[in-house]
Amino acid sequence: MITMLHLLGIDAGGTSTRAMVVRADGACLGIGRGGRGNPVSGGAEAAAAAIGAAVAGALEEWGGTEIDGVALAIAGGSVAGGPGWLEPTLATLGVTAPISVEPDLLAMYASGAHETAGYGLVAGTGATSVRVRNGEVDTTADGLGWLLGDTGSGFWIGHQVARAVATDLDGRGPATTLTPAVLATLGVAEDGPLVRGRVPALTRFVNATYLASPLQLATLAPLAFADPEDRVASDIVAAAEAALARAVLDVAQPDLSGPLVIGGGVATQPRVREAITSAVRAGGVTGDVRAVEDGLVGAGVLALRRAGITVDEQLFTTLRESTAQRRSGTTAQR
Amino acid sequence: MITMLHLLGIDAGGTSTRAMVVRADGACLGIGRGGRGNPVSGGAEAAAAAIGAAVAGALEEWGGTEIDGVALAIAGGSVAGGPGWLEPTLATLGVTAPISVEPDLLAMYASGAHETAGYGLVAGTGATSVRVRNGEVDTTADGLGWLLGDTGSGFWIGHQVARAVATDLDGRGPATTLTPAVLATLGVAEDGPLVRGRVPALTRFVNATYLASPLQLATLAPLAFADPEDRVASDIVAAAEAALARAVLDVAQPDLSGPLVIGGGVATQPRVREAITSAVRAGGVTGDVRAVEDGLVGAGVLALRRAGITVDEQLFTTLRESTAQRRSGTTAQR
Repeated sequence: MITMLHLLGIDAGGTSTRAMVVRADGACLGIGRGGRGNPVSGGAEAAAAAIGAAVAGALEEWGGTEIDGVALAIAGGSVAGGPGWLEPTLATLGVTAPISVEPDLLAMYASGAHETAGYGLVAGTGATSVRVRNGEVDTTADGLGWLLGDTGSGFWIGHQVARAVATDLDGRGPATTLTPAVLATLGVAEDGPLVRGRVPALTRFVNATYLASPLQLATLAPLAFADPEDRVASDIVAAAEAALARAVLDVAQPDLSGPLVIGGGVATQPRVREAITSAVRAGGVTGDVRAVEDGLVGAGVLALRRAGITVDEQLFTTLRESTAQRRSGTTAQR
Repeated sequence: MITMLHLLGIDAGGTSTRAMVVRADGACLGIGRGGRGNPVSGGAEAAAAAIGAAVAGALEEWGGTEIDGVALAIAGGSVAGGPGWLEPTLATLGVTAPISVEPDLLAMYASGAHETAGYGLVAGTGATSVRVRNGEVDTTADGLGWLLGDTGSGFWIGHQVARAVATDLDGRGPATTLTPAVLATLGVAEDGPLVRGRVPALTRFVNATYLASPLQLATLAPLAFADPEDRVASDIVAAAEAALARAVLDVAQPDLSGPLVIGGGVATQPRVREAITSAVRAGGVTGDVRAVEDGLVGAGVLALRRAGITVDEQLFTTLRESTAQRRSGTTAQR
């Protein structure tokens, strides 16, 4: 009897983690989920536990444990020391196959493209673009985090929104519908007499902001899309769109044509997707623009490739569709 | 025998604290120093201890304890609950006089002006401007902290410097002499082979930045002034100058003419002072521009005023000069 290889693809993110068991013919046989899987932002122990939960879920859905290879997609800087922090956790689940550590952006790209050359852009809380060549990340732009970069990301938009609201309340900038929207979101009251020439809502807003962690400003980003008539909000979104298109064009090369795969809550907003598409077209990037939900399918693609299996369009389609079916719960196969 | 009043002026800052004993005729009789005196940034207990050390030093230099009134100059938002957190500490030093809590910007202004109307601008780690009318703060602009405002401050400049260096190392922005200067300051090595198209210094710089607290970016601000030929650095400083001048003009009113008192490491840089002066002149603010070291003299002025003493030009000059003499150690009076 010939047994097909079974592989594990893991998409370990800063908020949540997904894992899948994929068979050599591209069939997704099980999916599991866990919490924050990044050892830098939350600690190695918590990340290993979250990834372990996702893997356990995928193995349980499949009903097996004999895994022939693992691809772990994770933010690049976080795994300089190799996957040693994860191996014991997987071993307790019966998985002792070698772990190939992959850039999270490569898995995101491979979730939308079987082509081994193209471009990727993720803009969620952060923002990063990549050029993919020969199936590997050839170069990266931005992704430098909230203090140093991530221009156009959810944090960046939320930060601009908060500064615009502060400027409005300080009487030094244009009035914007962002102000009542942000104050309502944060539960900040607007009433009360001026204190030394200032509205009390400003002091309350400042206090509420500094009590929270800076990254929580990203939660204000959706408000920038709420009122298309508001000039201040539209200007912030337009600046984000321009920065994200720039991040793609900064990694683009004339000799490399391929799809642009986009992911993340900001990049996949309809108006942002449309603006990025037309800006990169104008800059000479002419491939399809494809949106993906996360890097799960791509982690499966990378697991197959690292096991020596060629992922052509047909196998990719099988993987993508079987993953989607299993996600939506419409398959009963076990 | 008629005894003149003796008052205590305290300038409690986020980095250090100064206190002075001032006599009703304007003579500074003793000065003391302490650490961070802000109960919000460092906790009430530590702030009370730092202020206590400064007051103890001033009382010791004077050789008395009979204080008739206290003015405590401190950042506005930090003392909503009154000075109750400080009273026990002063009582242990024998000081039980009432404490008048004053805005730190008002003390900074009063360190440079006996006039009861004018403007103040402080730009150190943060940036705030005030309009003073009838001896009180009439209105304030900015001072909203590093996340929401402080545009043109030392943090703001250092942050722009760091982002410019990251963009340069990422190959996406103009080359700047800030890059080698910042890497040398942080002890980041520049050598090594590219990793996925990126110079290793970028990853090292990013890691070093996120290991530190965000506010430490302010320590990079002086580098922006180091090479006047560098276009990137000059543009950052010019943007800071424009923002600081804007902060003054945003509180200016045509009917209020008076001096502009400036303080803080950024505002008192010669090129910044000059740029602000000519920009506010162009905007109609025509009073003297006077630089001060801190808010100590002003805390003394406010202590005198709260005790019912009129601080005219002559008394102000006495206070300013006796404080300067005592600071430089050239007076032997005790």
